[in-house]
Amino acid sequence: MVDIATRVYNHSWKIDPIVRSVLDTDFYKLLMGQTIYRRHRGVDVTFGVVNRTHRVRLADIIDLGELREQLDHVRTLRLSRGESTWLRGNTFYGKRQMFSADFVGWLEGFRFPEYELREVDGQYELTFHGPWIETTMWEIPALAILNELRSRGVTRGMGKFELEVLYARGMSRVWEKIERLQRLPGLSISDFGTRRRHGFLWQDWCVQAMQEGLGDAFLGTSNCLIALRREVEAIGTNAHELPMVYTALAGDEQDMLEAPYRVLSDWQEDYQGNLLVVLPDTYGTTRFLAHAPDWVSGWTGIRIDSKDPIEGGEEACRFWLSRGEDPREKLTIFSDGLDIEMIERVHAHFAGRMRIGFGWGTLLTNDFRGLAPGGLLDPISVVCKVISADGRPTVKLSDNPTKATGPRREVERYQRVFDLDARVPQPVLV
Amino acid sequence: MVDIATRVYNHSWKIDPIVRSVLDTDFYKLLMGQTIYRRHRGVDVTFGVVNRTHRVRLADIIDLGELREQLDHVRTLRLSRGESTWLRGNTFYGKRQMFSADFVGWLEGFRFPEYELREVDGQYELTFHGPWIETTMWEIPALAILNELRSRGVTRGMGKFELEVLYARGMSRVWEKIERLQRLPGLSISDFGTRRRHGFLWQDWCVQAMQEGLGDAFLGTSNCLIALRREVEAIGTNAHELPMVYTALAGDEQDMLEAPYRVLSDWQEDYQGNLLVVLPDTYGTTRFLAHAPDWVSGWTGIRIDSKDPIEGGEEACRFWLSRGEDPREKLTIFSDGLDIEMIERVHAHFAGRMRIGFGWGTLLTNDFRGLAPGGLLDPISVVCKVISADGRPTVKLSDNPTKATGPRREVERYQRVFDLDARVPQPVLV
Repeated sequence: MVDIATRVYNHSWKIDPIVRSVLDTDFYKLLMGQTIYRRHRGVDVTFGVVNRTHRVRLADIIDLGELREQLDHVRTLRLSRGESTWLRGNTFYGKRQMFSADFVGWLEGFRFPEYELREVDGQYELTFHGPWIETTMWEIPALAILNELRSRGVTRGMGKFELEVLYARGMSRVWEKIERLQRLPGLSISDFGTRRRHGFLWQDWCVQAMQEGLGDAFLGTSNCLIALRREVEAIGTNAHELPMVYTALAGDEQDMLEAPYRVLSDWQEDYQGNLLVVLPDTYGTTRFLAHAPDWVSGWTGIRIDSKDPIEGGEEACRFWLSRGEDPREKLTIFSDGLDIEMIERVHAHFAGRMRIGFGWGTLLTNDFRGLAPGGLLDPISVVCKVISADGRPTVKLSDNPTKATGPRREVERYQRVFDLDARVPQPVLV
Repeated sequence: MVDIATRVYNHSWKIDPIVRSVLDTDFYKLLMGQTIYRRHRGVDVTFGVVNRTHRVRLADIIDLGELREQLDHVRTLRLSRGESTWLRGNTFYGKRQMFSADFVGWLEGFRFPEYELREVDGQYELTFHGPWIETTMWEIPALAILNELRSRGVTRGMGKFELEVLYARGMSRVWEKIERLQRLPGLSISDFGTRRRHGFLWQDWCVQAMQEGLGDAFLGTSNCLIALRREVEAIGTNAHELPMVYTALAGDEQDMLEAPYRVLSDWQEDYQGNLLVVLPDTYGTTRFLAHAPDWVSGWTGIRIDSKDPIEGGEEACRFWLSRGEDPREKLTIFSDGLDIEMIERVHAHFAGRMRIGFGWGTLLTNDFRGLAPGGLLDPISVVCKVISADGRPTVKLSDNPTKATGPRREVERYQRVFDLDARVPQPVLV
């Protein structure tokens, strides 16, 4: 039987919206959002999109008008009643009422702010100005839209069976990775792939495949909407934007050096337990850990996001030992450009020595490498980073210089302040 | 929107029928059927199913009751009006009205005759007794049912995503083969995979993938129902049952030796052009060609079905040259257990020397080798062969002794009559 109503309904959409919910975003945006809401509502922050994969000229693949339509659609979204109920009623990280009534109330009234968009030399310059608590919300939808519009641009015109086989190959690939993960005892892994996903439906498929294939070894997803719908944990902690803004707003150099730790002292007022995971690499992990106040070693874990994972994990281990902590009771989260081989290697390396967890992103939800002619569906490294706070440029140094952001003179100043020597840049795949 | 009507309708089926149409059979059954209808309506023939893959105990996988239900469902089928119209109105092999009005009239009234079914030592003994014109129609549906019930038995209990990935892998595999076929200039290939298909929907998918992927290089399918629905050519000529029955009914040894040629002289009264393809291997190709009357070399082609394809093709080539024919104007059809590597090898070997065509069966429509744990979905070699005609046992010797059928003493008598030395048995995969 033909379901005429569905067909007519589907064809009556003006566009096929990519982001259809305020909750189609990463959980850490809400956690950070609450901290920003409580402490920094007066701060203005500018976010900007950068495509680090220069060879892929997004403006040649994505139509400007379509991009505007998608971004405009996001601006029509508002938190639905069921979504609000979920935020108020669900248990996050074992805790009820993680989000205060006033923050959820604010989110109910939230609308995405304006954006600025122009084409520059084959790339899109997409920026968001305004209150931090508003502009921060653009990061994930902006990236998800750019990535999915690119996927659509590449797949447009493919034959029906060519498409079916494209996704068949993608599915086979994901499942083969899941089968390899099944062989890792005590595994703990989450989906972190919202921003770089091939598309929303694809991420949703990957999450369900992980659920079926891994059972309890699959902790959950960073995507709030998918966590809600698939009834899995929403996963995430915090990101570089907190120390970047805190440091940009600092007064003198001493204040700058203290700013990243202030992030943590604010954070532990808001959150507990497994949400107390340090992200130490914004201005170099080694210095950060060496100068960390004692209470930092009492936190649950450390996230390794830009250092070689083995090296970063060993450094975390040494840090805890030097502070009299037992690494076996600590948690190390790996989340930087992981793929199955690295997960296996890290798992084998640290087995029994620390608790470890994996935040698996791009190569879970967008591993179409080699599946389209000319690698046209290979994932790209596009990011949406904070650029300035209250008019001051923000800087990230990272453990990998390739991932550094900020104006060159500011980067040099930060390097001097944070005493960071020249390091060897590592290529960034995703 | 939920299509409630479809859901309710689907759940109201007593069984999920595997064969839903009289035309869900191979085209050669209709061509041979017409010849039998015209000349041998009085002959009684018994067909029987044999599973040559003994290690797979079908009765352990397939429930006897379910098998009966499927076979009983076939007995309720009758040619539909649209199907009859297609047989009367369609062009087959370039010819209108391939089937006479009286034969189509007979087919409209046709019902599948009774079957006999019992379990013997983990296998099903399934036999069909009665008029040849009726029992011959069981071959394909009986095999398709056994193969699909086996697939269902193995896939039952698999998880949703495990299943989706199973088919994703199968599709990727088929498409990779199609991509390799795309590189063969002047290719001509057909689907011959009805009997051994993984399932009806799977065969239908494979045919559509071949259509999209190969365009004109894909000639069509042996499956009449799929040819009708997908608007491609119905492909096929004749099979061993004709010489087997003719020879079983022959009088003395001289008559036996002449019987296979009588098949051809009857056949050429009914059909022309590309339907004049000799199947020479029933009692040994070499002897058959050596003693063939001169008019046999005037036929369009030869089908190689049990000899090494290169060797068989070379033999066909030599035969035509010895009869003063130009092999470049002749057609050799390869149809024995082909897979992509063999197709590429045969194509490269005979390029420019003969017209060649491929009838691709099991490893197109059932290549699930290694895709289920323990190889439980690997294709098996199950056949439905004529056993006796008017009470006399029928015999096939074949070019490959592994494929020989018949009672041992009769096989030995035929070997003596047809002067067939001991040959080296070749393993039969499918």
